[in-house]
Amino acid sequence: MADDATRAMIIDGKAFAASLVDRITTATAALIADHGITPGLAVVIVGEDPASQIYVRNKGETTARAGMRSETHRLTDTTSQDELLALVQTLNDDPGIHGILVQLPLPSQIDSSAVLGAIDPDKDVDGFHVVNAGRLAVGLPGLVPCTPLGSTLLLKDRLGDLSGLHAVIVGRSNIVGKPMAQLLLAENCTVTVAHSRSRDLPALCRTADILVAAVGRPETIRGDWIKPGATVIDVGINRVPALDPARAAEGKTRVVGDVAFAEALDVAGAITPVPGGVGPMTIASLLANTYVAACRAHGIVRSALDA
Amino acid sequence: MADDATRAMIIDGKAFAASLVDRITTATAALIADHGITPGLAVVIVGEDPASQIYVRNKGETTARAGMRSETHRLTDTTSQDELLALVQTLNDDPGIHGILVQLPLPSQIDSSAVLGAIDPDKDVDGFHVVNAGRLAVGLPGLVPCTPLGSTLLLKDRLGDLSGLHAVIVGRSNIVGKPMAQLLLAENCTVTVAHSRSRDLPALCRTADILVAAVGRPETIRGDWIKPGATVIDVGINRVPALDPARAAEGKTRVVGDVAFAEALDVAGAITPVPGGVGPMTIASLLANTYVAACRAHGIVRSALDA
Ligand SMILES: NC(=O)c1ccc[n+]([C@@H]2O[C@H](COP(=O)([O-])OP(=O)(O)OC[C@H]3O[C@@H](n4cnc5c(N)ncnc54)[C@H](OP(=O)(O)O)[C@@H]3O)[C@@H](O)[C@H]2O)c1
Ligand SMILES: NC(=O)c1ccc[n+]([C@@H]2O[C@H](COP(=O)([O-])OP(=O)(O)OC[C@H]3O[C@@H](n4cnc5c(N)ncnc54)[C@H](OP(=O)(O)O)[C@@H]3O)[C@@H](O)[C@H]2O)c1
Repeated sequence: MADDATRAMIIDGKAFAASLVDRITTATAALIADHGITPGLAVVIVGEDPASQIYVRNKGETTARAGMRSETHRLTDTTSQDELLALVQTLNDDPGIHGILVQLPLPSQIDSSAVLGAIDPDKDVDGFHVVNAGRLAVGLPGLVPCTPLGSTLLLKDRLGDLSGLHAVIVGRSNIVGKPMAQLLLAENCTVTVAHSRSRDLPALCRTADILVAAVGRPETIRGDWIKPGATVIDVGINRVPALDPARAAEGKTRVVGDVAFAEALDVAGAITPVPGGVGPMTIASLLANTYVAACRAHGIVRSALDA
Repeated sequence: MADDATRAMIIDGKAFAASLVDRITTATAALIADHGITPGLAVVIVGEDPASQIYVRNKGETTARAGMRSETHRLTDTTSQDELLALVQTLNDDPGIHGILVQLPLPSQIDSSAVLGAIDPDKDVDGFHVVNAGRLAVGLPGLVPCTPLGSTLLLKDRLGDLSGLHAVIVGRSNIVGKPMAQLLLAENCTVTVAHSRSRDLPALCRTADILVAAVGRPETIRGDWIKPGATVIDVGINRVPALDPARAAEGKTRVVGDVAFAEALDVAGAITPVPGGVGPMTIASLLANTYVAACRAHGIVRSALDA
């Protein structure tokens, strides 16, 4: 499949995320008009980590642009665990807040899992609470981690019905690989989960109709690991030295995925680029979760997968 | 692999379960002697279903024989949901009870999921509570459904380290297939989950080093679906007409698994028979869970997988 006519379609995650945000904005306006419910998202950030500051600002701005109520709570990096837990409790009890997101990482004096576990599961728009992991595992309505949710939305948009397709997921983290497996199983895929102990990964990947790379190692998945025509979702975000040696020597970097993109282009049927593929879906999925949480808090049945 | 020398080893689940119960009996005696803790299991049965009566009696007797405290609560089939929930609450609050099992099915006036959801997850020795499904999914200590737990114990006994082996699980129920997938992933297998929508199941099964059949359809997995030398775990329990046509005409039945056993014997490296394979492991796993729950209730770290 090396000729130009069969080069992979590049899945435009940025455009799809924008259209998803548009749909959520419309749905939010209807929720306000018809039911008087304004979805509210509270984002909590502790300390001054620059990358986290950027993420949090983006989340706040996108939320407000979608017509939702957006609150950002900025705490100093000397905040105690008890103070943070008290804030989470206040937000749990606030009927105007439907989603709570505590930005990670947290300073070392705070036990992250204690804080994440204190969030009301019905407001846990990150989907990291053990109760949401359980709901996803047994097929109950819950809130699903944003990155696998966004990846699944891209797949459904591209492929329609996923039933019977063989999905191979490389990576088994609690925030990407494992929830992705549950979501694709619920979509009636045959699902394989591989990881660092898996044998003969290239051959295994070649059996995939849908190949999801969530490895965290640059360009691990090579072109000849891909079945011709397969749909490839590259979740990886890896910073590597710039291509130009002079610029690399100056410390310049670029971002690549877990898939060798140029090689994959000649084999895959469709592939998400990095950047511009899965990445932009994460905030859009967060909004979808917040919208769904607000609906459900008022007994309105919605699923983020229908977003 | 058709010659006699390479016929599959038959995994004796009955013998392994008996030795597991022996080990738990010894560990229970030590827990009583060293810590003054007697593990206690409460089994609740509502109504007169004859099969359930037999299961419940077996569970009670095996528990008592292992030196644990055994309580059976028999309620009439007109019991209301509130009455049953009140009993569950009493058992949740009873410090001498470490495991609570509500035998299914429940009469139609009772919502089973409401009752199962009311059991303290730390006493949920059936492992069906959504919190335990979540703990299993994210890798936190919890209580694991008995049948997949027993199947995993058989595999570890037979194969030792499972790391890197490819496990194919046919079936994705919440009580067998899905928890089995989580357990084998935690054992570092590459894990594939297949189901009724899976395509080309025979070829998929032939890639398995470990093949787990939890389909609920008699003799679905044929001999030529099995990779030579693979270890086959047959979870199925299916009642079919007796082989002898005259006896079948009289309504006589026999029990077969989800694997065509006679065919599999010529190909597999090892296989669990039905009956006498996975079945006997279920009660033994229940005792393991009760022992583990009693230990953890007193801050003693134990895992049923080390049983
Ligand atoms: N787009 C987004 O918004 C977004 C969000 C989250 C994460 N990410 C990116 O996605 C990637 C994965 O994230 P994560 O949090 O899931 O990472 P993680 O927690 O580090 O998990 C990586 C997984 O990959 C497996 N693995 C590592 N090396 C491997 C190899 N050589 N062959 C096969 N498997 C291998 C690991 O196996 P073991 O379990 O055996 O160690 C592990 O299961 C990262 O690049 C991350 O930056 C992107
Ligand atoms: N040994 C024990 O103590 C014990 C304990 C529990 C169960 N069991 C036995 O184990 C078996 C499974 O139990 P379960 O509760 O998991 O059953 P279940 O809830 O009925 O699930 C059966 C699974 O098999 C899949 N399936 C059905 N037909 C199939 C086909 N032709 N090809 C591929 N997959 C197919 C189904 O797929 P879909 O999801 O697509 O419908 C489903 O996921 C039963 O025989 C049961 O009696 C034994």
